[in-house]
Amino acid sequence: MLEKISELKFYAQELYHLESILSLLFWDQATYMPQAAALARGKQRATLGGILQQKKTDPRLGLLLSAAEQEVRQNNLPYHSNEASLCRAMLRQYDIDRRVPADYINRMLEHSSKTEQAWLKAKEAQDFKVVEPFLSQTLALSQEYAHFFSNWDHIADPLIARSDYGWTVSQLKPLFTKLRQELLPLISTVLAKQNQRPPACLNQCFPKKDQLSFGEEILAKLGFDFERGRQDLTAHPFAIKMAHEDVRITTRVAEDHFSEALFSSIHEMGHALYELGIDKTLEGTILHQGTSSGVHESQSRLWENIVGRSLPFWEYFYPLLQTYFPKELSTTSLPDFYQAINTVKRSLIRTNADELTYNLHVIIRFDLEVDLLTGALKIKDLPEAWRERYREDLGVLPEHDSQGVLQDIHWYFDLIGGQFQCYTLGNILSAQFFKTAAKQLPNLSEQMRTGNFSNLKNWLDQNIYRHGSKFDGPELIRLATGDEGLKLEPYLEYLSKKFGAH
Amino acid sequence: MLEKISELKFYAQELYHLESILSLLFWDQATYMPQAAALARGKQRATLGGILQQKKTDPRLGLLLSAAEQEVRQNNLPYHSNEASLCRAMLRQYDIDRRVPADYINRMLEHSSKTEQAWLKAKEAQDFKVVEPFLSQTLALSQEYAHFFSNWDHIADPLIARSDYGWTVSQLKPLFTKLRQELLPLISTVLAKQNQRPPACLNQCFPKKDQLSFGEEILAKLGFDFERGRQDLTAHPFAIKMAHEDVRITTRVAEDHFSEALFSSIHEMGHALYELGIDKTLEGTILHQGTSSGVHESQSRLWENIVGRSLPFWEYFYPLLQTYFPKELSTTSLPDFYQAINTVKRSLIRTNADELTYNLHVIIRFDLEVDLLTGALKIKDLPEAWRERYREDLGVLPEHDSQGVLQDIHWYFDLIGGQFQCYTLGNILSAQFFKTAAKQLPNLSEQMRTGNFSNLKNWLDQNIYRHGSKFDGPELIRLATGDEGLKLEPYLEYLSKKFGAH
Repeated sequence: MLEKISELKFYAQELYHLESILSLLFWDQATYMPQAAALARGKQRATLGGILQQKKTDPRLGLLLSAAEQEVRQNNLPYHSNEASLCRAMLRQYDIDRRVPADYINRMLEHSSKTEQAWLKAKEAQDFKVVEPFLSQTLALSQEYAHFFSNWDHIADPLIARSDYGWTVSQLKPLFTKLRQELLPLISTVLAKQNQRPPACLNQCFPKKDQLSFGEEILAKLGFDFERGRQDLTAHPFAIKMAHEDVRITTRVAEDHFSEALFSSIHEMGHALYELGIDKTLEGTILHQGTSSGVHESQSRLWENIVGRSLPFWEYFYPLLQTYFPKELSTTSLPDFYQAINTVKRSLIRTNADELTYNLHVIIRFDLEVDLLTGALKIKDLPEAWRERYREDLGVLPEHDSQGVLQDIHWYFDLIGGQFQCYTLGNILSAQFFKTAAKQLPNLSEQMRTGNFSNLKNWLDQNIYRHGSKFDGPELIRLATGDEGLKLEPYLEYLSKKFGAH
Repeated sequence: MLEKISELKFYAQELYHLESILSLLFWDQATYMPQAAALARGKQRATLGGILQQKKTDPRLGLLLSAAEQEVRQNNLPYHSNEASLCRAMLRQYDIDRRVPADYINRMLEHSSKTEQAWLKAKEAQDFKVVEPFLSQTLALSQEYAHFFSNWDHIADPLIARSDYGWTVSQLKPLFTKLRQELLPLISTVLAKQNQRPPACLNQCFPKKDQLSFGEEILAKLGFDFERGRQDLTAHPFAIKMAHEDVRITTRVAEDHFSEALFSSIHEMGHALYELGIDKTLEGTILHQGTSSGVHESQSRLWENIVGRSLPFWEYFYPLLQTYFPKELSTTSLPDFYQAINTVKRSLIRTNADELTYNLHVIIRFDLEVDLLTGALKIKDLPEAWRERYREDLGVLPEHDSQGVLQDIHWYFDLIGGQFQCYTLGNILSAQFFKTAAKQLPNLSEQMRTGNFSNLKNWLDQNIYRHGSKFDGPELIRLATGDEGLKLEPYLEYLSKKFGAH
């Protein structure tokens, strides 16, 4: 009956499979591929990416989409139906793909691989100047990207929409500013109250094999389905989906840095649970993926921080951890261990930051990329602006650019703009979702304390995961929480309850 | 200057990369993919395979090939030049791809996945009848395939050409018949002379980890470049290439069956060395692959049998093996070990057969598939014909079909015809190549005895591997050996020298 929609689904499947294959090419390169094959792999990815791009911008897809949309209207299919949602999401993506010319994409890909090389050199030389001319061009390309679109209030909006459709500078900027204002005094208070010599229990050697076994036991207990996924080792942890039954995560283990493997595993598992929880009926379409980077990050953060760094969690798991590491931990009390994994510290590197200061790192980057895009900040002044903000917000000063403006790959691999909001968006959202879940599951803390995480996971499955990309971020928040939109309060409450109590 | 050839190379690259990606999809499915994703992986492979098929049969490729061929002629490019060879090989492949209709390929793919399922059930039920109707259709499809082509002497020829272009029934049938005639008495003689109670040293438990370490040490010593490849575990060992710098092999380990992992590793390494040795300038084209299944098999067999099961090889490696397994092997002498890995035995299963009886298994299958294709043998009579030949040639009788006609996947997964000749072709050729190498490297045995395999590998690189598919099998034999064509004598000499001496 729904002939055009059937045709559209058929078309969508081909795109979906090609995206999945691109994911495998990436996963394999990061895990098992002989490193000598990097150049060949780049060509394979470019070949497949080109074919995919062609299919995504084929005018026949445009015609099919119009016809399918008409069918949706004629049949009064409701907004939340799979069919109406598919048309909506594919039309939005098609519009974007058509606006961005193939020539631009090729220029950008070529530029970004050169920039990444220059960035690696700059990092080694600890000197921003090495990559500065490249980054100037990245900025120009980013501004060019924005101008492919119209109807935006702020030049950063189309860049934010690439990963967090539904949010704009006008919404995020005040929210982040408010969060910063709340965090600065909170961090000072916590630091003043916090034990000046945090427990040293993590500064020991934890054998790699045992860390991995413990981590896998935790993942299984939290609900990661090893029949539909796996965990491997990579230089940088990530989660990636190849199919509804094939979602893989990676981790890295440092024997002298216990938190790294465990919390990165739980973090990536959060991303994976989201993808694994999407309704199977959406498979083979663009809807079978998390709806935005920020919402995705809310799930990795929820599992990593709100669950994985909570006291109830460790009331249940700490005895198990002690059986894995009797020599290292038998004399460490649970409160000491809990404090050790929740120590707050002003520091230079985002990826090593604690839960509380982490947002300051993100907000600095968000503000800077917005100012770069508007022209309020020049590329040449970026390192100094960076230092200034670190001094002001975090009270620390990078000794050189590699500890500063060169530390993250984002700007040196992709565009400037839309690269960082997802992290703090995710933190804020994680608390908003968790608060709603806790309201509907009254004894959730008690459940966690007894090792029962399945009600929480079911709640997330039902209220967030299963929808995939049927709804954009703001829509999903309304649906899952009943709130009007993104709210900062639950996160502030969560932070002050957790860290105020120190 | 060579504009059309440049264009052709560009076109060839896309095909090459897509083939490489298909290989990765296969490798990943066999190694690390969660098994629950098999259905999704099938769809991914079908999607990509369809795109590739379309590009391979695009009439624009036909026009480009004609133009490029003209350019080759106008510029008097010699037969052995990369350019002339590329045109030749691509034209041949294009002709095949155009003759076989897309509709036929779809029917065949659908049929083969159903047949494989039926075969699995038949194997479990130990009853050929379960799969018989499917196999009847496979035979019809195989005959249909042959009729897409013209100018053949024997209906099996187009099927043989799929994997061993350059050879036909009229050449292979007499050669295999002669080999069988020589083998039957030789096997009887060997069995009569051979120690009736072969050394029991292999009937012990060899720990998996140590078997793998020993195997990797051997591979490295023989010249497998772990910077450009790797080894993983799978249910069925194979070798596969994703790029000039990415050739992977797999193995399987049975703790109570020491020979399996080691000799399958060396076997697959032989395939890998061939692919790794192809001239880098051929990469990105159809020429960057071994020229035929039989020639490929000659390399896996040469390394596995002529080298890996030889006395000089073990004179060098046996002391190392004893250090890996002191408990298991310290009281076993080298001659006993050598006899244990070279024991001849009449048996039912091809893949477990020794070097000498192996060919009888293959020739039986070759003869049967030729008779099926001509109609001389009916599918319903196949199991009985199988039993009859096993009784006659090997003096053993399968108790049920799973030990007989159901044992190999080949006919139940692909077409009938051209499936088995490569194994015996490979054996014959391995001796022909090795004899030539030994003539040009006079103290080759002595080199092997002292752990020097690099001259042999260099000879193979120079005379066989580097050419890729520039020459077909018969051409390559002439080039590498100076012989007119395939010769049986070197193999018969090799066998009677090795096994006559028992």
